[in-house]
Amino acid sequence: MNLEIMGKAAQQAAFELATAATKQKNQALAIIADELEANCDVILAANAKDIAAARESGMSDALVDRLLLNKERLAGIASDVRNVISLNDPVGSELDSKVLENGMRLSRRRVPLGVVGVIYEARPNVTIDIAALCLKTGNASILRGGRETFHSNMELVKVIQVALEKAGLPAASVQYIDKPDRELVSQLLKLDQYVDMIIPRGGAGLHKMCKENSTIPVIIGGFGISHIYVDQTADLARALDVVENAKVQRPSACNALDTLLVSEDVAEAFLPRLAERMNQSKVALVADGTSYALLEGKAADLRKVVDGDFDTEWLSFTLGVKVVKDVDEAIAHMRKHNASHSDAILTNDIRSAERFVNAAGSAAVYVNASTRFTDGAQFGLGAEVAVSTQKLHARGPMGLEELTSYKWVGVADYLIRS
Amino acid sequence: MNLEIMGKAAQQAAFELATAATKQKNQALAIIADELEANCDVILAANAKDIAAARESGMSDALVDRLLLNKERLAGIASDVRNVISLNDPVGSELDSKVLENGMRLSRRRVPLGVVGVIYEARPNVTIDIAALCLKTGNASILRGGRETFHSNMELVKVIQVALEKAGLPAASVQYIDKPDRELVSQLLKLDQYVDMIIPRGGAGLHKMCKENSTIPVIIGGFGISHIYVDQTADLARALDVVENAKVQRPSACNALDTLLVSEDVAEAFLPRLAERMNQSKVALVADGTSYALLEGKAADLRKVVDGDFDTEWLSFTLGVKVVKDVDEAIAHMRKHNASHSDAILTNDIRSAERFVNAAGSAAVYVNASTRFTDGAQFGLGAEVAVSTQKLHARGPMGLEELTSYKWVGVADYLIRS
Repeated sequence: MNLEIMGKAAQQAAFELATAATKQKNQALAIIADELEANCDVILAANAKDIAAARESGMSDALVDRLLLNKERLAGIASDVRNVISLNDPVGSELDSKVLENGMRLSRRRVPLGVVGVIYEARPNVTIDIAALCLKTGNASILRGGRETFHSNMELVKVIQVALEKAGLPAASVQYIDKPDRELVSQLLKLDQYVDMIIPRGGAGLHKMCKENSTIPVIIGGFGISHIYVDQTADLARALDVVENAKVQRPSACNALDTLLVSEDVAEAFLPRLAERMNQSKVALVADGTSYALLEGKAADLRKVVDGDFDTEWLSFTLGVKVVKDVDEAIAHMRKHNASHSDAILTNDIRSAERFVNAAGSAAVYVNASTRFTDGAQFGLGAEVAVSTQKLHARGPMGLEELTSYKWVGVADYLIRS
Repeated sequence: MNLEIMGKAAQQAAFELATAATKQKNQALAIIADELEANCDVILAANAKDIAAARESGMSDALVDRLLLNKERLAGIASDVRNVISLNDPVGSELDSKVLENGMRLSRRRVPLGVVGVIYEARPNVTIDIAALCLKTGNASILRGGRETFHSNMELVKVIQVALEKAGLPAASVQYIDKPDRELVSQLLKLDQYVDMIIPRGGAGLHKMCKENSTIPVIIGGFGISHIYVDQTADLARALDVVENAKVQRPSACNALDTLLVSEDVAEAFLPRLAERMNQSKVALVADGTSYALLEGKAADLRKVVDGDFDTEWLSFTLGVKVVKDVDEAIAHMRKHNASHSDAILTNDIRSAERFVNAAGSAAVYVNASTRFTDGAQFGLGAEVAVSTQKLHARGPMGLEELTSYKWVGVADYLIRS
């Protein structure tokens, strides 16, 4: 397996994809969806091998379930692909245009990024998902899935490549690194001559590895400490609903609440009610000194905060709690603990809301809403490639447009610069 | 000199700058401009030290001139700063907004990137220039200039920091790495906890070093092979003017023409006229076999192309020439030789123009115009931070907006996700 050759083939495919008509790209997507259903048995047989190996290795049932494909899930994946067909193709549209004084008509036109490298773990639906989104936006992709879904992914990629050829597009538009060798990931990360963007989809360790080793721009994201600040003017009953939603609706999500900050003016009124509500959902509370005193005897599962707790993304039924003086102290806490994903203020005071929105440095900032809304589907993007927590290129949920770049197009009449 | 401490201070300054009013940022800029003029003698004395050292080291007159400051140049720099005051502050404006079905008002609001690291060489005006643009957009900056302008830069940074404090902004908004140690650059490139973007302003070697060592996103750009393709339908007399302009108006610029591609249908008519025109400007021609035969005896300075010539950014009075079959062969040549900066087609055929514009992968693509237009001022951006030839974040000339990111702002009425 030679990654240099893969990179070159991907770049060649990207040249063709860049000028492929939307109709042709949609045709390929339609064939992928059809073939997924037609090849259901083969795909499920391959998946069964992965599941057996996972069980043998002692993997937990919850994790095994993430790898599992069945007829319904496969139909769901095919239906997701058909949904991508219905989305607008952003390629070719103009971001803006103007006529310069010298008569040149100058515009910025959306173009594909080129070649996208995606490194992901576990769930086999990512293979189809990301390949479809890249294809729709005219990008070639080089995929590297987890070894736990190796057999499934091989069949899925076969389906994609057959569909590409049936639609008259290069099979190398979607390639898969099919050797488990970790060294190949390092090689992928250095292919800056051919690959334009790396998307890691996995934990913080994977992102760190990519950031440290890649010579290609990496989209960092998908994790971060989420905060809600309950201001002194907040409607406490309704605040309770929002905090509960942000914490318990899906604790494993990266936009789930990690740390609750409460204004000292309402801590005494709010925290006992919080304890009651959190007890119902079996949420453990990790409290600073002031809030501990107010929660003691009321919260069923309570401990004092230790170093690092406020830097922990819980991803579980645990919630950090801290009493702060005001919105400025809340902001100071968030800055110190690298808030970068989703943060909310609950308040009825327009000045607190403005101060919070202006000063919070996160990708998504809410006033009187749950942090759980940070999501491509919730934001109406139609698709989600990743959730970026870095500042360059794109922030927060990334949809199809975020898989594009632009080029300047200048049209004139044999114009020279004087 | 501890870069960790500098990074932390820059981040703190960036927090303040992010919510500073435009008025206050403009005030700081106005004071910088005034102080540059008020401190003219001190700055020129420091610059004289740099110039003396440069002369002593045997630096060429042309290079020494790049380092030189005098009263007029300093007044020019101050005037550039005043020009930045007059530009629109992009921070706080909304990219777009919508109301979701659930009633949430969702918008994307421009915010500063945070902390920008800039590594540059030679000309001391870059110090003021980049600091002013970062300040205007609410970004803190960490600067690292060339050692040839060390004394000048120290005085310029002093002026900036005094001005910042007079305007009530943190002095750490603009910091300078004042030790020549190269190891400090490596440390800067790893400060991803505090620095959001690295802009290298210098040659390909500097960019490569940054790309390979940085864990922070790097803006790659400022160089690339520029092409003009003369189509068979081009108006040859006017094409000659455009080619001459692209090659000789400022050969040292990164958007100057490197390789001329000529349709075989017009090569016999065009190339002898090209030879004549290039002879007038003392341009050496480096020709492929077919064009060599047509240029021989006519071009005063002619040699056959050797391996690597078509991958060379000449930056001088030299021009590569090649005869190609048609627009597709021109595109194929450009792809092979990594066209990424500025490319043009000269044609009267709308189909050739469309094909070229769609297929060319460069940051700027022109129809019937010189490649020399790729420039922030020419494009009406008001300022130029860098010229990006990568695909992520920004492409081509980068102005103030490209020094910003965005955050999602969602406002609702205690809304929970169901």
